[in-house]
Formats: sequence, C-alpha cells, structure tokens
Amino acid sequence: MTYQPRFIFLLILAVFSLMFILSLPVQAVSAPVPSNKTQFCLGCHSQLNPGLVSDWENSRHSWMTPQKALEKDKLKRRFSAENIPTELKDKTVGCAECHLLNPEKHKDTFNHNGQKVHTIVSPQDCATCHPKEHAQYKKNKMSFAYKNLVNNLVYDMIISTSNGLLDYDPKEGISKLKEPDRLSNEDSCLFCHGTKVKVTGIVDRNTPMGTMEFADLQGWPNQGVGRINPDGSLGSCSACHARHEFSIAMARQPHTCSECHKGPDVPAYKVYEVSKHGNIFFSRANKWNLDPVPWTVGQDFTSPSCASCHVSLLVQKGGSLIINRSHQMNDRLYSRIFGLPYAHPQPKSPDTSIIKNKSGLPLPTELSGEPVDTFLIGKQEQESRKKQMKKVCLSCHSAQWTDNHFIKLDRSLETTNHMTKQATKILKTAWQEGLAKGLSAEDSITNELIELQWVEQWLFYGNSIRFASAMAGADYGVFANGRWYQHKNLRIMIDRLKNLRQRAKGSN
Amino acid sequence: MTYQPRFIFLLILAVFSLMFILSLPVQAVSAPVPSNKTQFCLGCHSQLNPGLVSDWENSRHSWMTPQKALEKDKLKRRFSAENIPTELKDKTVGCAECHLLNPEKHKDTFNHNGQKVHTIVSPQDCATCHPKEHAQYKKNKMSFAYKNLVNNLVYDMIISTSNGLLDYDPKEGISKLKEPDRLSNEDSCLFCHGTKVKVTGIVDRNTPMGTMEFADLQGWPNQGVGRINPDGSLGSCSACHARHEFSIAMARQPHTCSECHKGPDVPAYKVYEVSKHGNIFFSRANKWNLDPVPWTVGQDFTSPSCASCHVSLLVQKGGSLIINRSHQMNDRLYSRIFGLPYAHPQPKSPDTSIIKNKSGLPLPTELSGEPVDTFLIGKQEQESRKKQMKKVCLSCHSAQWTDNHFIKLDRSLETTNHMTKQATKILKTAWQEGLAKGLSAEDSITNELIELQWVEQWLFYGNSIRFASAMAGADYGVFANGRWYQHKNLRIMIDRLKNLRQRAKGSN
Amino acid sequence: MTYQPRFIFLLILAVFSLMFILSLPVQAVSAPVPSNKTQFCLGCHSQLNPGLVSDWENSRHSWMTPQKALEKDKLKRRFSAENIPTELKDKTVGCAECHLLNPEKHKDTFNHNGQKVHTIVSPQDCATCHPKEHAQYKKNKMSFAYKNLVNNLVYDMIISTSNGLLDYDPKEGISKLKEPDRLSNEDSCLFCHGTKVKVTGIVDRNTPMGTMEFADLQGWPNQGVGRINPDGSLGSCSACHARHEFSIAMARQPHTCSECHKGPDVPAYKVYEVSKHGNIFFSRANKWNLDPVPWTVGQDFTSPSCASCHVSLLVQKGGSLIINRSHQMNDRLYSRIFGLPYAHPQPKSPDTSIIKNKSGLPLPTELSGEPVDTFLIGKQEQESRKKQMKKVCLSCHSAQWTDNHFIKLDRSLETTNHMTKQATKILKTAWQEGLAKGLSAEDSITNELIELQWVEQWLFYGNSIRFASAMAGADYGVFANGRWYQHKNLRIMIDRLKNLRQRAKGSN
Repeated sequence: MTYQPRFIFLLILAVFSLMFILSLPVQAVSAPVPSNKTQFCLGCHSQLNPGLVSDWENSRHSWMTPQKALEKDKLKRRFSAENIPTELKDKTVGCAECHLLNPEKHKDTFNHNGQKVHTIVSPQDCATCHPKEHAQYKKNKMSFAYKNLVNNLVYDMIISTSNGLLDYDPKEGISKLKEPDRLSNEDSCLFCHGTKVKVTGIVDRNTPMGTMEFADLQGWPNQGVGRINPDGSLGSCSACHARHEFSIAMARQPHTCSECHKGPDVPAYKVYEVSKHGNIFFSRANKWNLDPVPWTVGQDFTSPSCASCHVSLLVQKGGSLIINRSHQMNDRLYSRIFGLPYAHPQPKSPDTSIIKNKSGLPLPTELSGEPVDTFLIGKQEQESRKKQMKKVCLSCHSAQWTDNHFIKLDRSLETTNHMTKQATKILKTAWQEGLAKGLSAEDSITNELIELQWVEQWLFYGNSIRFASAMAGADYGVFANGRWYQHKNLRIMIDRLKNLRQRAKGSN
Repeated sequence: MTYQPRFIFLLILAVFSLMFILSLPVQAVSAPVPSNKTQFCLGCHSQLNPGLVSDWENSRHSWMTPQKALEKDKLKRRFSAENIPTELKDKTVGCAECHLLNPEKHKDTFNHNGQKVHTIVSPQDCATCHPKEHAQYKKNKMSFAYKNLVNNLVYDMIISTSNGLLDYDPKEGISKLKEPDRLSNEDSCLFCHGTKVKVTGIVDRNTPMGTMEFADLQGWPNQGVGRINPDGSLGSCSACHARHEFSIAMARQPHTCSECHKGPDVPAYKVYEVSKHGNIFFSRANKWNLDPVPWTVGQDFTSPSCASCHVSLLVQKGGSLIINRSHQMNDRLYSRIFGLPYAHPQPKSPDTSIIKNKSGLPLPTELSGEPVDTFLIGKQEQESRKKQMKKVCLSCHSAQWTDNHFIKLDRSLETTNHMTKQATKILKTAWQEGLAKGLSAEDSITNELIELQWVEQWLFYGNSIRFASAMAGADYGVFANGRWYQHKNLRIMIDRLKNLRQRAKGSN
Repeated sequence: MTYQPRFIFLLILAVFSLMFILSLPVQAVSAPVPSNKTQFCLGCHSQLNPGLVSDWENSRHSWMTPQKALEKDKLKRRFSAENIPTELKDKTVGCAECHLLNPEKHKDTFNHNGQKVHTIVSPQDCATCHPKEHAQYKKNKMSFAYKNLVNNLVYDMIISTSNGLLDYDPKEGISKLKEPDRLSNEDSCLFCHGTKVKVTGIVDRNTPMGTMEFADLQGWPNQGVGRINPDGSLGSCSACHARHEFSIAMARQPHTCSECHKGPDVPAYKVYEVSKHGNIFFSRANKWNLDPVPWTVGQDFTSPSCASCHVSLLVQKGGSLIINRSHQMNDRLYSRIFGLPYAHPQPKSPDTSIIKNKSGLPLPTELSGEPVDTFLIGKQEQESRKKQMKKVCLSCHSAQWTDNHFIKLDRSLETTNHMTKQATKILKTAWQEGLAKGLSAEDSITNELIELQWVEQWLFYGNSIRFASAMAGADYGVFANGRWYQHKNLRIMIDRLKNLRQRAKGSN
C-alpha cells in the first residue's frame, strides 16, 4: 500500500470535480440531477474515460428519475418495479446508483476513494428497478448459457475439439488433443455464453491518479448472456443493452442479436438478411422510430426485427395490445430448431444440464431421433406458444399465410431430422465396426473426421435449413449453407465409411 | 356453412367501420379518398392486420389517384397506362381496386362479404395501370423462373440433390434418393423462383369475425419472381416492390435484390458489398433521395445500386435522358455470366426450357463449352447491349476506364470457362470409365461426389469469379469464394478420379 | 490524326461551356470559385460525366480554398502543408488543380485541348497539400502492397495457384499449371494490392467531341493501395477517399476498409460485424457526425470504426488530444496478426520484400515458427505501440478491461501459431518422404492438395481466429471460420498424409 500519492490524487480529484461541476449547464431547479456520489465519480471518469461517460450522458438513465418514470402509464413504463428504494427515487441513474448497489453481495467489491464499488453491475443489481425482466430472464435458456454448456458432456467435447491444442507427431502418427485453456475458451465459446467471473484478489494498479486498489477479475472482460457474476447472479444485461447507453432502440436492432447469432450454428442474422423482413428493415429502418414504449406496429416500424417477434411489447395504432414484452423469449417458441442433434419441443426448464436421454447422454433427443419427452414441453404448451407467435405474424399477414408458413417449417423439421438420422446411422456403424472410437471406447464423439462431419450435419446444415425456414430466408438454406451441403455432407460420410472399411481391410 | 355467426359478424363489422371512419382525419373536399369498397375493407382489416394497412397508408397508392398521375409529365410518371378504366380514375388505389380486379380471370376468387375477392394480386392486375412494365417483364427470364427451372432436366437433378431425402443403409451400403416433396421445394428453390399456386377448393376458416369462406391455396405464401398465378400470369411484382407499400425507393436498394442474389450461385450482393459502388452506397445512401422519378445521377444518388445499372430510368442534372427504364433487365446485358455450365451470350427467349444442345441436354452450351448459337443472341445484339450498359458507366467513368473494365470481364469469362472445361473433362472420363454413373447409365449427373464437385466448379466458383469481375468486387472472387477454390476444387476432382480408379482396381 | 472534327468539337465546347457558366448560381464576389482552367474542364465533363462532376461538387474541394484552410486552427486542418503554391491558393480545388499538376513527372501526360493533362492523380500530386499524410503513408506496408506481393516467391506461388489456368489430361493424369495472365491478376489480387500502371502509347479515341488523343494505360482502371503510378509514386489515395468526393466521412466508415478486408485471409470487417463495436456502429452511426476534424469521442461518435483505432486524430470533449492522426497505421500495432505463416512482431520496414529467413524463404518467420528478429521490431517498440493503441481503448474502457483484452489476444497468437506449427510439421514430413514436392524438388509449395490445406491453416483459419480475438468478434472465430475449422483442417491433413503414404506403398 502506498499512501503518499493519495494526497496528490485528492488534489487532482478536487480540481477535476470542480472543472466538471463548472462545465454542467445551468439548469432549472426542477431538472433531475445526478446524485452527489455520481458527480464525484464523474469528476475523474469524464476525463479518464470520456467515451464511457458520453455514452451514459446519451442514455435515458442520465436525465430520468425512477420517481418520474413511476408516474407514467403502465404500458409506457420502461421498468417494472412498483417500489423503488427511497434513496434512488429522485436522482438520475448514474455511476453510483448501480456500481454501489448491494456491496455486501458482490465479491468484486473494493474500496475506491472511500466507496464500496463493484466493477460488474449484475442482473441482480438491475432488478432493483427491472425486477420483472430479471424474473423472466431467469426462465430464459440464455441465462443458463454458461452452465448448460460447460456441464454438458457432448458440448464439452465440441469445445475441446474447437479450442484444444492438437499435438501431432507425423513420424509416429500419434495425435494428442490437450484440454483447452481458460483464455482460449473465454475468447471463443464463452464470449457469447458468458464466463465464470472470479475475484482472485485485490491488486494495486498504477493509474493517472496514482496507485489504487482494484478487485482483480478473472474471466473479465465478458458480456456473455449466461455469465456467472461475482454476486452469483446469471447473465449480463449489457449483452443486448450495450453499456453505458442501455438503449432499447439498439436492443431492438438485429445487429445486436447478430453478435452471437450469425455463425453457421445459429445463423439467424444471415437468414434475416435474405428475408423480406430483413430487406424492409435494412431499406427502411433509418426512418423508423425504434425507441418508443410501447412499440406501435405499422407506425413506429413496418417490419419485424428479431426483438419484435421474440421480445417486444407490441401495440397497434390506437394502443390496443398485440403481445406482451417477454425476456423469457421462448414463451413464443414451440420448437427448438437448434438440433441436439435433432429439432425437438422446447425444454421445460432453462437449465438443460438436467436432461438425460435413454442412453445416458445429456441430449434432449435419442441418437435415433425420439425426443426425451419428460424434459420437454407437451403438445398443448407447444400449441399455446405457436398461437402467441402467430399474434405477431397476424399483424401483417392473413391467417392462411401464417398457417401455411408454419406447415412449411414443420416439414423442414422433419426433413432435416431425417437427414441427421442418416448421418447418425453412418456414425454408429463406424463405431460398431471399430472404425471410429465413440463413447463405448471412452473417446470423444467429436474428434475424428467422420465425427466432425456428423456434428456439421446437424449443427451447421440442419440448423441453417431450419432457421432459413423459420424466418423465411430461403436463399440461405439452399446453396449458401443448407440443403446442398446437407446432402453433400452425407455423401462425404458415406464415402468416408467406405474408406475406413478399406483401410481396416488393408491393415489386416 | 354456418349462418348464425354472420349476424354477429355484421354487427362487429358495423362497429369497426364506424370506428374507422371516425378515425379518419377531416380532409378538404378535394383530397383524394379511398373508394367506398376500400373503406369497407379497411373497416375490419385496419384492426385485424394493422401493419398491413399501415404499410398501404405509407404508400403512394393511398394518397394518389391515377387521374392525377396522368396529369404529370411523362418522364415523371410512375406508371405507363395511357387510359385508365373510369371507375379507377378518381379514387386512391386501395384494397378493392386491386383485390377485386378481373374476378373472372382469377381461379382464387371467393365471396367475401358480398364481394368477389382474390388473395393474389397478379402482374396482370398490376398491368391495368402498369402495362409497359408488365410487357417488359414478360421478356425477362425472371418471369420464367419457375418454368425454366422445373422443366429442365439438369436443374431438376440439382433440385433433387438438394431437397430430396436420402436413405442410407450403412450395412448394405445402399443409398436411395427420394424425389423431394412439394413443401421442401417451396421452402427452398421455389421461394425465389416462384411456386405454382393452385386453388384446391373453398374452405371455411374461423376468424375473429366468425366462420368465413376462403379460397384454399397451395403453393402459398410465395413471392417468387416466376410464380404461376391462379390467373395464369407469371411472376410477382411484390418480389421487389414489397407489399403493401410497393415502394420504388425500396426496389432501388440492393437489399431487395439480395433476397435471392446472395448465395454462391449468384453472389451479386456479396460482390456489391466489397465493391467501391457498394462502399459508397452503404456509407452514403442515408443521404440519398431514393424516391424520385426520374432518378438524377449525382443529385439523387452518387453510386449505382443494382437498379441503377439494370432497371432504372436515369437522367442527368437538367433532365436529359441517360437511359430508359427496363423491366426486361437483360436488355443491358450482353453475356450471361451464370454458367450452364459455361458463361455464354444471353438467350434470345426468356423461356429457356426450349433450349437443347447437340447432345440433347437442355443447356445453352455444349459440355465441351461451345455456345448453342441458335438459341442465343448474336455478336451484333451483344455489342448493342454492351453499349446500353456503358451509357450508365459513362455517367461517372471515362471511356477508357469503362472499356478496360469490360476487357477484364471478358477475360474472366474465358478463364472460368477454361476451368469449367477441365472439370468437365474429368467428369466425362469418370463416366466413360464407369467410375461414376451419368446420363448414359440413366442416372442423375448431380448426385455422386465427383458430380457435386463438378456442379460447384461452375455454379459456385465460376459464377462467383464472374460476378466479382462484372461488378468490380474483386475481394469476393479471390479467397472468399473464387479463384482459390476454383483451383482447389479441380485438384480435389483430380484426386477423386485417382481414388475412384484405385477403388475400381481394388475391387477387381 | 483527324483535324476536321476539331472545329465541330470547339463549337460544341463553346456551347457547353456557356451552358455550364449560365447554370452556375449567382454568387457573392467573395465566395471561392473554380479556376478558369477548371471551369473549362467542367464545360464538357459536367455533360459527359455528370455523376463524376456531381461527386466533386459534393466535395469540400469544390467550395474551399487552400488559403482559407490555412487560416484554421492546426488541429482542425484537413491538410498538413504549411506552404501552398501561390497559383493554387485562392481557387477551389478542381479538375485542373490536380490533373494538371507536375506534368513533367507524369508519363501519362497527354495533350487535351491545349493542356498537359494526366489521368491518374497520384499520392505525389495530393502531397502538394497533404505532405505529412503522404510521408506517413510511405511508411505504411500498404504503399508496398504491389511490390511486396509480386517480389515475394511464396506469395507469387499463391497467386499462380489462384489465378493460373490448370490444364488437365485425365487420360494421362498429367496436370499443367500455366502462369497467370496480367488481366487475371489485375482482376483479383492486384485489384486491392494495386497494379503497375504503364503508359503504352498515345492513342486516338472517338468521343462525343470527335476524335481525341489519350494516354493509353495498361493496368487501368485500378485503385489498389500499392499501385505503381506513372509518376513512380506508390499507392492510390482514392482507395479509401473515393473519387471525386474524397470524403473523410466515408474513409471513416468500415465499408471502405471492407473493400479489401473481408475475405477469410483478412476478415477484419466480418469480425467487426459481430463485435459490440460493430453492433453500435451499425445501430447508431446514422446519428453520428462522421465529418468533423478533429473527431470527438463520445460526441461525434460512440463506438470505434476501423479508422478510429488505426488512423484518426481523436480528441475528447473540450478538445484535449487522445491520439494523433496516422497514415502509417502500423504505429499503433505491435504484432502482425497476418501470419506468414506465423503471427510475428511488425516488420521494421514497409518494404517486406527484403526479408529472408534462415532457410532463404522471404518470410518473417522460420517454417518452425521463430520470428526473424533482424527484420522485425523489438520488445520495446512493441510495448510502445501497444501503449499507443491502448490510448484509444481507454477512452471507453477501464485499464483492467483493456489489459485483459490484450492478454487474451496474446494467447490467441500462441495457440494459432501452435496449430500452424503442427500443419507445417505434417507438410514437411510429406516433402521429406517424397509424398509431395516442395522447394527442394523445385516445385511450388502451394499447388498440391496437402499444400493448399497448409496454406488455409494459417491464411484462413489462423488469421481469422486472430482477427476475431484482436477485434473482439468471437462469433466469427469459432464456427464461422475459425477454431472449428482450424482443428478440422489439421485432421484432414493428418488423414491426407496417411492416404499419400498408402498410395505410395500401393504403387511400390
């Protein structure tokens, strides 16, 4: 601990704070102001991180108070709390209001100029004003994105295959796949899924203000949707509501979802780009009003973005409700088109790590294709969810249009499942004949060429075709990354099986 | 037939209609209004499909009458009719004006609250006001996109390969490719090419207004460019002019074309994205004026979009004509860079199903590369079309720039054709040596691995390189999806031939 | 030479010039005007190339004079010259000011209506007003993009592989790769890298003004960053500052960089698209102010584009400097993540054709991975450059966030280098065992299947993963084009080696 620089620091701080206060526009008494604590923060940080502070200044948080928000009509409110702690009511929502919340719950709390500050504002902190959104999000599989990934044997194998270092000795022909390191995982899968943030201690850092203490964080930076926060809560609101503007207008744009839904495993954005919906968005959205709550179909926007169908509170002109806001998201989804390895009804619990199929694998379907009913929603719930989604469709489309769309989707689920089944038969045969090493040989099922091809069959091609069908962006599902390759990949697997058999014969 | 709900329905209808009429803004007497019939439609549908109705309200159709349009200077008109049926002249163009047109011609006509309504407004309906556009579009290959696809043996094989279900028995090593089902085709190839819409009968449907009759449509929804409509007409204007705004500004944006021209078979949009033209569009178009007719180069827009070069009526500042509008589109195109399997002069007729090469295949070139002259435009017509296109180029580029651009393109046609020829030689050898089964073995020519690779050689790599060259987006044509893979794919085919020969030897 | 049309031409010219002058808005005496020479140019070209002239009219060049610019505060200046030639000072920067500059230095100078005009305005011409930018750009590897490419044996092999015509005789099994022709190279690699522009003579061309003389250019059109210009200078300012608007606002948009940085070899734009930075840009940039100099973080823009991090002069609110403008670009880059074949410290000189590793290859690393230190910057310079870049990061992020980001990046450099090393071991083994022909067999090292796979290992997958890591767009680096394929490609190479050994055995 160094004490001397503190004095210098306090001096600098005083000067900066004064400068900042003098720079504030003269305002009428009634205009909401930041709390004293927040003004203290801004004193330094508006100089140190000007972009960060500007972002906040552009945010609704910077000029609105919870009290004023509470006075609004319910449908127009952007938060769900009925009671706000008194000390937060009358000030704008600034640095201090969030970064000083619940210090006792935060393992990342540290002393910062006499305040108990934490770096990571968690969903639990946000829930102070947004409790309903938090409660809904807890039922969203996304909040379990870390847990469901790392606690699942099959996913874990895919992580190892992608991120592990392979050592190969070409003379001996021996390959060894090492377990991936933490940094590699955090720079790939966990970037979207979320990291487990650990506080490894309190460290001194040199800063422009002198040496200061900070909580040292492992797994940070990260904004993954299933992040395990130092206060034990799950997720990161800023995954979609980017810091420090926390804009609903941004979360409503497909660019936000595209951060994690663009790859061939979940190509929602790619499909949107070739859909009529996407065309209208990209051609017209610069004239839309992306900010209002509630969001009026046809008036504020003229084509759905991801949020319109999956999250947003929608009304029609005049204000009658079309559909309620949902941060659970899958309450409008009847099938899970992300195959594991087959498309299947949505799981009941967001925690999918509890799922086991008959052969003991942590998958919602058998390898032969049957869904593992116990863990999945039933027909009635499926119908009810489909009906919810159709409410959105019917805003612009006729019932016949809408019904026929879902009939086509259901057929795509069947055909892609069929093609996955053929691939699985080939793989199982390879295992049975000893041409590849599967679980019974206590080996990974995603590390040999024929296994990689099997994974691609459902993870890339099956998923792509289903997304293209669900979101009416056919072009992506044919030649770009869909039906053509789904067939070709099967031919490659058939050929591979032949090859492996020949090799086996040759070596006898 | 249920009659009782009708009374409830009429009551609801009356209330809604009254609500709607009261909601209309008080307007001066002279402002154009919707027809009574349209107002009747809006009574319910503004509640049932608010987004659809808003779209129309945002359209020029909702506030313009044909009569007023006729009074405009010819170059400024957005339609081409000289005579408009009297009953359509003085009212805005609303629901009734389109959905009640030509009821006797429409097999999808059904009774709807006493009116003979049809769901699908066809190009023939639009031709009432836009006859020239319709006539031009009939000469556009796009209007034959369904027919040319399904009536062509080779294309049909590619459809089967992409969409058919493959059954594989790994024990016996027997694979069976089933014919694709209708829904799969409609959810993939026919999404863009267009479906054949059939009326299968009149059905009752439960609606918020009670049970009502509707024409039951097969092949619907669809907006494909070569759709066969229930009135026998070809195409769908809303493929590019999205319902119900029918905006010229949207059709002029590349996002519209990208719905069908983004995959590796016709990657026009991908190429545009890496071209200087695309860069300027994406950086600047939010300041452009995309709506005016005519469209003034340099004033309304500063870089071509797809429409500028292929469709739009362009003038220069002051109003002198640069080039006329064309819905035929290929009248500015001298070569068809979409290889079948080789690039070739544009076909004379938009109906390409009539083409046969010497070996009887429905292709505009021989398998050895020679174009099938009888069906293709001659040198003179090619030169004349190239000159048309250059008019657009010369708006911003010098003659030397422009000429040299096309010299480079012509070289790309030669080199890609050469590389396709090598691939074809390999495939023919495989057929001749019995290592793959082609037409002489009465088998598909696109279902074995070496055949798939042959298809990719021209459909993916040849086409991509040519589009990259034609639209000056070189980056796409090198490593993204072009020359690198064109060479690699040939190496794979060479290697495959070796492999097949070895296997054949081994099995002897 | 035809003289007669000259008279007709002069008549037309007079009429056009008069028309043009009359069309100019009446301006106050003090408003800057184009020079007489420029007005003469505009007389014809505003009719002949209206889009080109409009672009210029939209540019700052058309209404600003160097003299007025010199009167501005230094930080606000858009050019760096302290002294401007007198004859250029008081007029706007029009056609004549650039296309008549330094005629004696330009081999492409030709007589055009009595003026010594050159087509290609080179960086040396631009340096008249922008000398500092030119001097910096000379230290930028991009200015050597042509030279570094064509003078490097290994790159040359990759060009041949991509662009050469392959002849294959399937009967004899003999393949022959021809050297690529000039037009193919110019339509692919050299499109971005730049061509060598040669003047092949003076030719007559028919123009709307009659027959006229022009310098005939080879390697034209081209706007590549390392273009060899007829005056001997390197590069093309219009690569990023598109003619004839030369807009800084456009150069600051990622669309500009995407023209050449989108393919799998340098997928910067693809990574940006899935990064939080990209999300904010695409969601928000239509509200940004992209034009001001200097550029204020948080006020003018709220998320970095490519330029913010790599080029732009940034200040914070109030005007204090964050970082200086740089057209050298790599002065903020400590490592070169573009592997050759391994990631390595930035080279000292922009001319990388001078680099030789121990085995005599023109690569900055040994095939076994060690960097060739002599030609690369040292640790201290690396640290200093990293610090420069961090200045930008710290505008919005904490020190911990920033530091940890680069720790993750450094780990990605290690892991991707490791995976490249395995691929290289396999390839070397294949060469040693005579299963592929490398340098010692006097053969290309990028023309056999196993060699192509080796190139893809670092050029596509290694690079993609590193870009995804460097720019925090993880989604691209996992399944889209990254870690999954990096592993799979290695498995394919291992399998290939087995196959080649078996074939070799079989043929004995």
